[in-house]
Amino acid sequence: MSLTISIDAMGGDYGPQVTIPASLDCLKNNPGLKLILVGDEAVLRPLLSNGLKEYPGRLLIQHASQCVAMDESPAKALKNKKDSSMRVAINLVRDGFADACVSAGNTGALMATARFVLKMIPGIDRPAIISTLPSIYGHTYALDLGANVDCTAEHLFQFAVMGAELVKAVENIDSPKIGLLNIGEEDVKGNEQVKSAAKLLENSSLNYIGYVEGDSLNAGHVKVDLIVADGFVGNVALKSIEGAAKMIGTALRQSFARNYCSKLAGLVAYPVLRSFKNRIDPRLYNGASFLGLRGLVIKSHGGADRLAFKTAIQLAEIEVKQDVIKKISEQVEQSLALRASV
Amino acid sequence: MSLTISIDAMGGDYGPQVTIPASLDCLKNNPGLKLILVGDEAVLRPLLSNGLKEYPGRLLIQHASQCVAMDESPAKALKNKKDSSMRVAINLVRDGFADACVSAGNTGALMATARFVLKMIPGIDRPAIISTLPSIYGHTYALDLGANVDCTAEHLFQFAVMGAELVKAVENIDSPKIGLLNIGEEDVKGNEQVKSAAKLLENSSLNYIGYVEGDSLNAGHVKVDLIVADGFVGNVALKSIEGAAKMIGTALRQSFARNYCSKLAGLVAYPVLRSFKNRIDPRLYNGASFLGLRGLVIKSHGGADRLAFKTAIQLAEIEVKQDVIKKISEQVEQSLALRASV
Repeated sequence: MSLTISIDAMGGDYGPQVTIPASLDCLKNNPGLKLILVGDEAVLRPLLSNGLKEYPGRLLIQHASQCVAMDESPAKALKNKKDSSMRVAINLVRDGFADACVSAGNTGALMATARFVLKMIPGIDRPAIISTLPSIYGHTYALDLGANVDCTAEHLFQFAVMGAELVKAVENIDSPKIGLLNIGEEDVKGNEQVKSAAKLLENSSLNYIGYVEGDSLNAGHVKVDLIVADGFVGNVALKSIEGAAKMIGTALRQSFARNYCSKLAGLVAYPVLRSFKNRIDPRLYNGASFLGLRGLVIKSHGGADRLAFKTAIQLAEIEVKQDVIKKISEQVEQSLALRASV
Repeated sequence: MSLTISIDAMGGDYGPQVTIPASLDCLKNNPGLKLILVGDEAVLRPLLSNGLKEYPGRLLIQHASQCVAMDESPAKALKNKKDSSMRVAINLVRDGFADACVSAGNTGALMATARFVLKMIPGIDRPAIISTLPSIYGHTYALDLGANVDCTAEHLFQFAVMGAELVKAVENIDSPKIGLLNIGEEDVKGNEQVKSAAKLLENSSLNYIGYVEGDSLNAGHVKVDLIVADGFVGNVALKSIEGAAKMIGTALRQSFARNYCSKLAGLVAYPVLRSFKNRIDPRLYNGASFLGLRGLVIKSHGGADRLAFKTAIQLAEIEVKQDVIKKISEQVEQSLALRASV
């Protein structure tokens, strides 16, 4: 099976410096993969000359004259950047030239553009951002991580339906365990939106296990496959975890750097510390999917390096192979039909 | 200056096992401190016989016939447990026998009881929970950490006024830097509640520095002294950080436990790992203050051990010495007068 992914080669904090080597790594790893790199041809062609020779018929450059800045407003990008690398990469998905698009660009602009170009799956009101987080059980999926700041119970329910389908497809789990993010596990806890969403989930065919607290994202007392939250709460939780990891990493480094003895201990412990670092390496969790659209769009962290961006492309490969969009669309249709018949 | 604190000796997962040794530690540390231990006298007296001899005139037992269970509903506790150790400990603050109360009991019941018994500071609609988190800059204060699940902009503003006064008093900072928790730093980001709160803060005399993201709790790119959030968001952020720390700690331990070589490296690195662990030890951050009440109530983590509970009592000592309630009340009055005159 051939699989084509369009890459916003100009996106992210480092642009082609990162997107090109990561793309070539992926072509090397997967002989079934084709890539379309979108961006300023004058910049990309010299950087890709070896790649074009090495992977004949598997690598295209598609010219785009504009770039969306990392701090540009989504509305402006949508209006004024119709030939941006981001927009053209998404157009390629809409027109069937690519099966998915990967971008490390401006999240808001990417979401607005993807929504405008690809349109929503019928029955879904809003797109949501889903990603995985490392946990003591392996990893946990969570959505929405920031696309929507005010969600109704119905939106949370739709997120659960879409997220469950993604987890089923990607993780090969029959019936993923779904938790609703709340400030306690008891029924009385939470705001009206969460309590109403709990009722919708309890009355659905989803494997809803109840409320979970913030610690369940990484280390809950029971394993959860998917955690559903409002985008405001989900985004704050995600960033809080990033901050905690950074603070702990800083404290660990400083402890080993304190004096000669601690530095020596650090040398002895280096292989262990490296294996520890690899295990929770955020680059191996890079790549968030926009769910609810009629096409696959993967958002890479803006500051992604070669390894991190490669991880995001590989996530796109998996989601294409698993036909995630088709599965989600079918599930949404079934779930709507089921609720209409009740 | 004499300083008296009432202790809910029966509260928490471990009750007197933890509260008594921690109380005796505090009496030893601070000769100006008096404690009233509240709970079942038949249980407490034998455990305290040495303490009563060692600290004559500084240690009282106040009998209370009931206990509030950790999973009891706040409404039921309020209605049926009028002679609980928690309630009696708070009554002692209301009646002026104690300057503050410390409890490791059920958070919801403690909040409901404290609010009922002590009443609110005039001008404040809702109490908020504030605590410190370790950060790369030292530590950060954050509120609300879970008392209120639906806050208006006005509530967030009141939290900022109260929190700033606490930080000023406890940290001896003239004008603490205040950030509003949001999903981005740009003006366009966030929900209506946060955007309106930002306007109130911008037009106040507080040192408001703008929106901050979740990572600012532990490791922001600029130092913030106080972070203000809705209780739902604040609680999820706090628990997410706890989960991240637990997951990282587990991964670190597992890495060192993997084989003979890694275990040997762990032995060599042990002093460094211990100093690292001490630095981010959550027990040293135990103790959350309930702000907005006409009396000081400190909530300890339910699972607190002796060191952690001691930290919570010491926090109460500091807040009493700094006359936090009086300062907050005066500031709230001024701030309301200022806004009324605009």
